[in-house]
Amino acid sequence: MTDFAATKAKFHLPKGVIYLDGNSLGPLPVAAMERARRTIESEWGELLIRAWNLAGWMDQPRRVGDRIARLIGAAPGTVVMGDTLSIKMHQTLAAALSMRPERKVVLSDTGNFPSDLYIAQGLIESLDRGHVLKTVAPEAVEAELGEHVAVLMLTHVDYGSGRMHDMARLTQKAHAVGALVIWDLAHSAGAVPLDLAGCKADFAAGCTYKYLNGGPGAPAFIYLRPDHIDTARTALAGWLGHEAPFDFARDYRPARGIERMRIGTPSVVQMSILEAALDIWDQIDMAALRARSVELTELFIDRVEAQCPALKLDSPRPPAMRGSQVSFRFEHGYAVIQALIARGVIGDFRAPDRMRFGFAPLYTDHGDVRCAVDILAKILTERAWDRPEYRKVAAVT
Amino acid sequence: MTDFAATKAKFHLPKGVIYLDGNSLGPLPVAAMERARRTIESEWGELLIRAWNLAGWMDQPRRVGDRIARLIGAAPGTVVMGDTLSIKMHQTLAAALSMRPERKVVLSDTGNFPSDLYIAQGLIESLDRGHVLKTVAPEAVEAELGEHVAVLMLTHVDYGSGRMHDMARLTQKAHAVGALVIWDLAHSAGAVPLDLAGCKADFAAGCTYKYLNGGPGAPAFIYLRPDHIDTARTALAGWLGHEAPFDFARDYRPARGIERMRIGTPSVVQMSILEAALDIWDQIDMAALRARSVELTELFIDRVEAQCPALKLDSPRPPAMRGSQVSFRFEHGYAVIQALIARGVIGDFRAPDRMRFGFAPLYTDHGDVRCAVDILAKILTERAWDRPEYRKVAAVT
Repeated sequence: MTDFAATKAKFHLPKGVIYLDGNSLGPLPVAAMERARRTIESEWGELLIRAWNLAGWMDQPRRVGDRIARLIGAAPGTVVMGDTLSIKMHQTLAAALSMRPERKVVLSDTGNFPSDLYIAQGLIESLDRGHVLKTVAPEAVEAELGEHVAVLMLTHVDYGSGRMHDMARLTQKAHAVGALVIWDLAHSAGAVPLDLAGCKADFAAGCTYKYLNGGPGAPAFIYLRPDHIDTARTALAGWLGHEAPFDFARDYRPARGIERMRIGTPSVVQMSILEAALDIWDQIDMAALRARSVELTELFIDRVEAQCPALKLDSPRPPAMRGSQVSFRFEHGYAVIQALIARGVIGDFRAPDRMRFGFAPLYTDHGDVRCAVDILAKILTERAWDRPEYRKVAAVT
Repeated sequence: MTDFAATKAKFHLPKGVIYLDGNSLGPLPVAAMERARRTIESEWGELLIRAWNLAGWMDQPRRVGDRIARLIGAAPGTVVMGDTLSIKMHQTLAAALSMRPERKVVLSDTGNFPSDLYIAQGLIESLDRGHVLKTVAPEAVEAELGEHVAVLMLTHVDYGSGRMHDMARLTQKAHAVGALVIWDLAHSAGAVPLDLAGCKADFAAGCTYKYLNGGPGAPAFIYLRPDHIDTARTALAGWLGHEAPFDFARDYRPARGIERMRIGTPSVVQMSILEAALDIWDQIDMAALRARSVELTELFIDRVEAQCPALKLDSPRPPAMRGSQVSFRFEHGYAVIQALIARGVIGDFRAPDRMRFGFAPLYTDHGDVRCAVDILAKILTERAWDRPEYRKVAAVT
């Protein structure tokens, strides 16, 4: 059984802060600084170029990928680290489209993170082969699936509302019409249990700086179903995805294995910091994490609805239909979030009126939730949103 | 006048090591650890999500780009940081090809770093519009330029031999036939003075972990000529290249300004380490650096030719025709490099018989060069390459 009081002690949380924005940027693992020091001073500083071999930098993207694999229900050897989520989405979509050349529709939904839609638009424009990106309401995705669909590309948990798609069901339905499926796990990895292998998803990608606590700029991950690994083609044919990078051959030959999804030099220091975060994750039972996450989000919703009647729940009410975040709508939401931050409760705001709160069992407990709601209720009672200092504009996902 | 004894003290060099592989991975700036600590502990740890604004993370890629700009002869606002050199080359090539839709030839040379060729091959295959990658010998590039050429894509300084193209001349010749020019500056940035603006180069990209000493996984940079910035299209349409990322609009609208070449979340920690390296670079006069670099490479060549007659120079003899590295060929080169490393002189080896040595005036002085050659001569005299411990295989660019 995971001891969440023990995991909380493994994070640095500033005094007086209740952090409900780990769905945007997770907090600093206490051990991360020492891990970074080792990479910077002992490996880079002392070994210099030799660290690529002696400190294992060359294999790090695969090694770290295997640790991520357990958290997302994937087999070892099917996940590799690198680049950013946008790049990894580009790789998956380019590979998928090339596997369904006769079909022209990329199906997504309006709850997808805009960046995924941008990547699809950029790729489609660049390919110039008549592809169409079709976005429908999340609940309309299933009805839209048909033999015209090349790829179903969805974000599993909606970045705004926390609404969670039924991955197994949609994957099965898409496969039934011959479409391939790509899952963006940005708000899922480390937030909910996943079973990529079990549901036979074709491709997936995610970032590691949110629930996984890998730090700002931590590398992304990419997953390929085992039977796609040795056939998928990426337009981003990079040196470290070559079968034999050190042959310096002039012709690209994709590597066997998930390494073919590597591109250029990995961000060694960022990945080492992520490794410190994964030392915590290696001990976590995902079912226990989910149970605790549901407890925390249920408690939050119950209390807010009881203490803050002006706020309107913007997330699905049944826990099975949402991830590990909760959103409420309120006309003065921006100012309320600023007032919360001023009082040590960090959530975030998304236009026009959405207040987002992420719940990460690794460092958020029931006491934090009760305290956060009490502060929120006080702000609402005091109508603190009217104060001029809370009226500026600034935000980051 | 730059004081190179003072700059040498700003790097951590392991005791007993003469480091001649900064063309592959530069050494650790002494101030880098403290800069990393600030980003990790004071910014990420204390400010959490707020650091994107309060610590300036959001603007960091542009701010750092402006510091790189001075080193490569570019104006402020024409360089931005992010991703890896391979990704940035993909962006430049995709943009360039879309600007010459009627032409089908990408011209490069056999001295290009293979990864650039892979990126071109991957893009061409993905576009499937009849483009051809043509590679000719470096000295044949000029004769091959004609109105069939869409893009001339070259690495300025050859990663193997150090041979340097005449950037101004080739750019002008390419423009004369209506072709666009992309320069890969991996082995040029921080190695030789550059004048991208003066020679009217269309696009350039480079990495920062070699001569610029940004550390393993440091971000790449991309340059666009000012008149291309607001028209270039990238297939990699990412969130942070959007005109208004925080509108979360569903349609991609490229940013005005060099920001449109940004893609996803920047590697904040790696870029902060690079900033510590740039604190040194900000003080460097590039003409003085070049003068010193030529002194060091000339001294090295003279001494090796005098003391090690079995070695054959593989770099151009006239300093004006090479960058800041020198290569020699020798049948037992691999074992000789291992023997050198065992005695504290770190160079590297590229198959089949090339020994590479990089000379970085920031931390390499005339005494280092003399000492390195004495050790090399001793190894050759002793025929140390016959020893079994020097016969393994391993290498990294």
